[in-house]
Amino acid sequence: MKNIIKYPAQNTWKAFLQRPALEKKDLRNTVQEIFLKVRNEGDSALKEFSDKFDQVNIENLLVSKEELEFAINEVSEELKTAINQATENIYKFHVAQKGSTEEIETTEGVVCWRESRAIEKVGLYIPGGTAPLFSTVLMLAVPAEIAGCKEVILCTPPQKDGSINPAILYTAQLCGITKIFKVGGAQAIAALTFGTESIPEVDKIFGPGNQYVTQAKQLAMEFNVAIDLPAGPSEVLVIADQSANPIFCAADLLSQAEHGSDSQVIFISTDEIIFNETLKEIEKQLAELPRNEIAKSALDNSRFILLKSVDEALEMSNFYAPEHLILSVENPRSYISKITNAGSIFLGNYTPESAGDYASGTNHTLPTNGFAKNYSGVSLDSFVKKITIQEITKIGLKNIGKTIEVMAEAEGLNAHKNAVSLRLKSLENGI
Amino acid sequence: MKNIIKYPAQNTWKAFLQRPALEKKDLRNTVQEIFLKVRNEGDSALKEFSDKFDQVNIENLLVSKEELEFAINEVSEELKTAINQATENIYKFHVAQKGSTEEIETTEGVVCWRESRAIEKVGLYIPGGTAPLFSTVLMLAVPAEIAGCKEVILCTPPQKDGSINPAILYTAQLCGITKIFKVGGAQAIAALTFGTESIPEVDKIFGPGNQYVTQAKQLAMEFNVAIDLPAGPSEVLVIADQSANPIFCAADLLSQAEHGSDSQVIFISTDEIIFNETLKEIEKQLAELPRNEIAKSALDNSRFILLKSVDEALEMSNFYAPEHLILSVENPRSYISKITNAGSIFLGNYTPESAGDYASGTNHTLPTNGFAKNYSGVSLDSFVKKITIQEITKIGLKNIGKTIEVMAEAEGLNAHKNAVSLRLKSLENGI
Repeated sequence: MKNIIKYPAQNTWKAFLQRPALEKKDLRNTVQEIFLKVRNEGDSALKEFSDKFDQVNIENLLVSKEELEFAINEVSEELKTAINQATENIYKFHVAQKGSTEEIETTEGVVCWRESRAIEKVGLYIPGGTAPLFSTVLMLAVPAEIAGCKEVILCTPPQKDGSINPAILYTAQLCGITKIFKVGGAQAIAALTFGTESIPEVDKIFGPGNQYVTQAKQLAMEFNVAIDLPAGPSEVLVIADQSANPIFCAADLLSQAEHGSDSQVIFISTDEIIFNETLKEIEKQLAELPRNEIAKSALDNSRFILLKSVDEALEMSNFYAPEHLILSVENPRSYISKITNAGSIFLGNYTPESAGDYASGTNHTLPTNGFAKNYSGVSLDSFVKKITIQEITKIGLKNIGKTIEVMAEAEGLNAHKNAVSLRLKSLENGI
Repeated sequence: MKNIIKYPAQNTWKAFLQRPALEKKDLRNTVQEIFLKVRNEGDSALKEFSDKFDQVNIENLLVSKEELEFAINEVSEELKTAINQATENIYKFHVAQKGSTEEIETTEGVVCWRESRAIEKVGLYIPGGTAPLFSTVLMLAVPAEIAGCKEVILCTPPQKDGSINPAILYTAQLCGITKIFKVGGAQAIAALTFGTESIPEVDKIFGPGNQYVTQAKQLAMEFNVAIDLPAGPSEVLVIADQSANPIFCAADLLSQAEHGSDSQVIFISTDEIIFNETLKEIEKQLAELPRNEIAKSALDNSRFILLKSVDEALEMSNFYAPEHLILSVENPRSYISKITNAGSIFLGNYTPESAGDYASGTNHTLPTNGFAKNYSGVSLDSFVKKITIQEITKIGLKNIGKTIEVMAEAEGLNAHKNAVSLRLKSLENGI
């Protein structure tokens, strides 16, 4: 294992914390062509692309009632129980984000407040591939349901036999989603952007995906559709002091590494014994993982760093801005106020990252790739808009009218001024 | 005045509420070249572009201490008083958006919460042109200050004599901004994206601008910088019943129309007398406006619509999703719950839109162009990220451990499962 760095000077951090450059092929033209074809030809284009890219022949894009019912029987009781508990926790955490509407009287007679409204139509994209990400269905569909989105559409690519993984179908139904379409890739994002005969157009698109999906979501924005977050490979940063458990640290680092060969893993310790033990444990646990080829190649991009103090480690973490930050240190709560950039934080030895991935209640759709500096993860806020409202009484307008007139005039906007002056004049005459 | 529509059937709405297609020239290549040059050559590229595009020769990009002091003396006491009152109201409304941190115990021993952190470095862009938009400085700088952003940079193009309008400099200082740079256009956005010798790079860029600036903000996102909102021409929709005042309605419609020839103005009335009076009043007031050429051409794109009821008007408004919605109707509060898409709402006869533009306290940076369907306006939230935090005790992990194991295994992610299994095993042995 290379990439071991001991007590580096601050001015060297930038270089070795550089994220590996993403292989950002220019897919813009390819995806633009897909968009054009879907816009013009609708469903038939979707079927053609499924045939071409996924080698699947889809008769009906919409998952049928029978398929939905079948899925419910296919999922084991054990998995249902697990999904139900996770749903409950995710619900509790997100419903508490509703917040109240507080009216603020900014000046006597001038009252302002904000109210939330659901984004009416949202599209959830769930990728296919090796892992059926039904947990991502939960993370997106539960807050959509709490927000009260009127239309929640789910698109996911079919398996080779034309079916969708039952756990995905079960989870979607549990969250009230019944419009599930068998379509993946950039063409699915195009369908959600423009609508087709079968698939309704939406206001906002959520969910992970490959490079084509990522490029398609960017393009969707140019057609006025909003998206959840910019994409990037998943990452974890673990800070461990002498109180950490090397077995747990190794397990957490590996659970990140198994996501994909482009996953990022950073381990920082202030204790040389814990540091060395963790390195050994990784080798040991790695050997037994089914996905160890993936994990191994992610570990090639990883960094193992010894630092003098937890405070220094937090400075480094803030600089890196990790998606997931695990604090395996004594009294972890005392450090929270020092954390400025992170997607989600896991405190202490018994809070593994996988708890947040599935069941603690927090959302696992988080800012990666340094976006923790300027984006929040998905929350109830992602499914609503906040509308500002103001009500001004006659007294109120008298109190702030002059200010508006003076400012509007100084900006050269006389009609703006006029809208106040005419009202003030009527009040002078009237009252 | 054309574009008068009486009692249209619902299936015709889409056609006549179509926003005029934006003249969206493909400026991508031009702006990409500007970005490349600024990235490679820094300040000297900025000076070259100012010379080329704005015909101004800038020696020092940074506004000097002397210029800042001079500006304070230049601004009239009357304007200072006005700006101070507006600042106070904007501060009150935005500081109330702070919200509290509530810990949620989703399962016994599993505690989750969210904490806000300021986005560290933000850049505010204030356009030049005919109107010195010092009110926009307030709308962006006040919440940035409340959020606690460490670095707030302001870029604005210099006037022909190389100076910046004193009201902009006064307002910026009032909000604690001292790093003000004389640079405009796409090159300013490029500087905020990459940083130059003088101008620090930032995490998020705010503010309005022309087509070049808009395209530059889109491009900035591809370099991992966040932006406030997608851009579009400003718009207002006024709903007036028999209780409305035609003089006020006309003034509000015109104050929107004077923004620019691409401004959108929609007037809906349920009362034919009010409707006709308002049309007459517009002609009358228009004649006296200094910017009446601009207003006139904006009115060419406007719509004047008679409908049967306020409920129907609200349906139409929700369909259109206006940036500003004025409810000049009896008991306006009773209709709020029916409004699903709007940027900001103005209630009753004494709440002109210009109050929200300057001094009621709400933010005037709002979603236009139909974006009120899927975006909120700028608020304190725009200047922070929300980090989720979780802390799980040994008991907590026992309570949700099985759920995580089962779900991780079903997704084929064994290292995720392992991170829990190893902990549960240690607890069995330990306790």
